[in-house]
Amino acid sequence: MAESRLGEPIRQGTGGLPRLLIFDVNETLSDMSPMAARFEDVGAPASLAKAWFAGLLRDGFALTVVGENPAFAELAAEGLRGHLAGGSLDRDLESAVSHVMAGFSDLGVHGDVAGALRRLADLGFRLVTLSNGSASIAARLLADAGVDDCFESFLSVEQADIWKPVPGAYGYALEQCGVRAGDAMLIAVHPWDTDGARRAGLASAWLNRGGSRYPAYFLSPTLEAPSLLDLAQQLESRRG
Amino acid sequence: MAESRLGEPIRQGTGGLPRLLIFDVNETLSDMSPMAARFEDVGAPASLAKAWFAGLLRDGFALTVVGENPAFAELAAEGLRGHLAGGSLDRDLESAVSHVMAGFSDLGVHGDVAGALRRLADLGFRLVTLSNGSASIAARLLADAGVDDCFESFLSVEQADIWKPVPGAYGYALEQCGVRAGDAMLIAVHPWDTDGARRAGLASAWLNRGGSRYPAYFLSPTLEAPSLLDLAQQLESRRG
Repeated sequence: MAESRLGEPIRQGTGGLPRLLIFDVNETLSDMSPMAARFEDVGAPASLAKAWFAGLLRDGFALTVVGENPAFAELAAEGLRGHLAGGSLDRDLESAVSHVMAGFSDLGVHGDVAGALRRLADLGFRLVTLSNGSASIAARLLADAGVDDCFESFLSVEQADIWKPVPGAYGYALEQCGVRAGDAMLIAVHPWDTDGARRAGLASAWLNRGGSRYPAYFLSPTLEAPSLLDLAQQLESRRG
Repeated sequence: MAESRLGEPIRQGTGGLPRLLIFDVNETLSDMSPMAARFEDVGAPASLAKAWFAGLLRDGFALTVVGENPAFAELAAEGLRGHLAGGSLDRDLESAVSHVMAGFSDLGVHGDVAGALRRLADLGFRLVTLSNGSASIAARLLADAGVDDCFESFLSVEQADIWKPVPGAYGYALEQCGVRAGDAMLIAVHPWDTDGARRAGLASAWLNRGGSRYPAYFLSPTLEAPSLLDLAQQLESRRG
């Protein structure tokens, strides 16, 4: 059995590899750094972008804890209202919220994404997305990058009725694809997502583009890579 | 039945009022604004403080979603390592983490807290704290403010085995105090906490010191007040 970089056995699929690669979308495929400029555009500090996105997930998870399945875009917009309401803006609040929200539909993929996705598809892996956001954002993002044909479907927890990292959210993707947990790998930049996938029985790969530390309080990912291209190379080399 | 500011009936206790007031601790009683200066002390941006605390709750809730009961202080320190590792610091990473963490033990209460707590205790309300952090932080904070004698106990989810906003966390406090949910009110600055309390059958009061908006995606609080003193006055006036 192949050993991952972190010394844990990689799940068995055909040839010791996962057959299905499940991609998170926001930040994992999309480059969210332009969102900071959207805050500046409306007269707010660029630094708000990170606190806003962390707070959005914090509140989404709090609602998940109590059994709700909130709409990602609604949380995002309402969270913006909270963050922007107190400060000085160069336009009215709703216009500012709309301008920042429009940034979501305008994001591109990270530079390492398109080529790596093509390579993984060519290697015969099945590719899907699974987002806590809407499937349409993922479909648009990957179409704009010219790699939507690499994916067999764009899945959202909106249909799963529960957000990641609840095991049932990953289970929904497996069920849609007819694949066992042991034959699937979740790929994400978010440690809470790779942790959740591991708990649901999937393998996981953590994309660490920024050279961050993986939090010790989450289950280690099966694989770690500094880019999606590097991960594709790791998977290819295991394929032998 | 008395009507709250938000037009919802206040839960019935003795005289239409809650008998037990359950206080959140971090940010609700403690003034966390000095934490930003702790980041600056070690050479990091002050703006990291908000993203760090939101990320700490995000990851704590993600672990709560999958049934874990993480130690707040461990998440806080490990989250700091992640936020501080990439940037320029004026000391080594562990010293920087220790310096910021020490800030938690050095916080004071907000200016509106001590007098209001004394007043609420004098009015005959039973007072306890319920924190996702450790009980010792709350005990130290309120002793330093000279109002620890107003509280009958300092409770932590460490003993509840589950974080707020899971209903069982509030249930633990009720059980410890021998009070029904309908006779208790949770007081917090965090909308995810007032939401969770309402779902668990308690009344809730949202302290809105900064003039923020209450997110529409959470259940409205039973009461809203710009300060704890104002809340004490609202409760006193309902007492008649």
